[in-house]
Amino acid sequence: MPLIEPARCQVDVAAGRMAGGTGAYRKRLADLAGLYLDETAFAALAALRGDEVVYEVGDFRPSENPGDMIFGLTRMSPGKVGEEYFLTRGHIHARADRPEVYYGQAGHGLMLMESPAGDTRIVEVGPQTICYVPPRWIHRSVNTGTEDFVMMFAYPADSGQDYDIIARSGGMKTRIFDDGAGGWVARDNADYRPRSAVEIAALMAA
Amino acid sequence: MPLIEPARCQVDVAAGRMAGGTGAYRKRLADLAGLYLDETAFAALAALRGDEVVYEVGDFRPSENPGDMIFGLTRMSPGKVGEEYFLTRGHIHARADRPEVYYGQAGHGLMLMESPAGDTRIVEVGPQTICYVPPRWIHRSVNTGTEDFVMMFAYPADSGQDYDIIARSGGMKTRIFDDGAGGWVARDNADYRPRSAVEIAALMAA
Repeated sequence: MPLIEPARCQVDVAAGRMAGGTGAYRKRLADLAGLYLDETAFAALAALRGDEVVYEVGDFRPSENPGDMIFGLTRMSPGKVGEEYFLTRGHIHARADRPEVYYGQAGHGLMLMESPAGDTRIVEVGPQTICYVPPRWIHRSVNTGTEDFVMMFAYPADSGQDYDIIARSGGMKTRIFDDGAGGWVARDNADYRPRSAVEIAALMAA
Repeated sequence: MPLIEPARCQVDVAAGRMAGGTGAYRKRLADLAGLYLDETAFAALAALRGDEVVYEVGDFRPSENPGDMIFGLTRMSPGKVGEEYFLTRGHIHARADRPEVYYGQAGHGLMLMESPAGDTRIVEVGPQTICYVPPRWIHRSVNTGTEDFVMMFAYPADSGQDYDIIARSGGMKTRIFDDGAGGWVARDNADYRPRSAVEIAALMAA
């Protein structure tokens, strides 16, 4: 293997950006069609603000070699669709035995996690909270606050992402809503379809 | 593989500590005998402050499974031995093809890196600087500031550490000193013994 050069990236927490990365992408509100329970509220909001960037990710990818690592910064805007908070599409790693570490730097939100068998775990993330997402957990972040939610992240370079796993089960089993009293509440997603025993076994054996 | 539970760790940047980890260790000044050029200055300082904790590391180790990750927080006190800044012992990963990511949270310092063949790279790390240490680079952090130098770190769970590689070559090739004008200066270490071609080849082939 050739020697890889060291790198230095500078994070601007207030802007939610990392300088010195190798790539970046943005998701606009219109890109998130189908994720929210209240489709009427989504259509109304998307008609007004569909082009608005709701989250952006900048990363540094030195290589995809097994054993190497990718890291970066994610910024998510505050907001709701109906009473459901803005969230990321979510994913499981294509190599399901790969974990991810998130480190909150600004704002307040949740890491919503779901096991292959449909167990839910929720970790509240604020400034200086590190959330460890173990191998095999589907994960999505949710901005439950009123400011940008900014996290640094790191994961194995050969992890890959399977973004479709959530759509295949009709969404994650749990949705996160404003409780109307200054906090959040988790409610079951009525559209959720459990994964098959075969799919669960494959994810657990990966 | 059994499912690992998610985890939440909270960092206290001012204290340089991470709550919720699985382990921690501390290095006292007396533990760092042999690292500094000025042995007389070290002996004098150690006589007075040998029991003082000069750096501490707290980490979270979910597993040592290939593909999993370890993360944590390191805090290093400011100080000098003669004109040479406080530093960590330094290491290369026992699996030399494993990288490490450091994320500065407080204070100012350097990541001093050395390739198997003896090339030096220095990355200045301040608050919100991410330093990527690629596979195969020996690395050590140096507190060039006047406050605690605090960094979050993450690396592959199967990396391991070889702390002896630096001693075997008579120290790292480069030492970092106060330049007497408010900054730092890198100078060659006269005791440095280059690694053999065989050892270099083994580290590059790992």
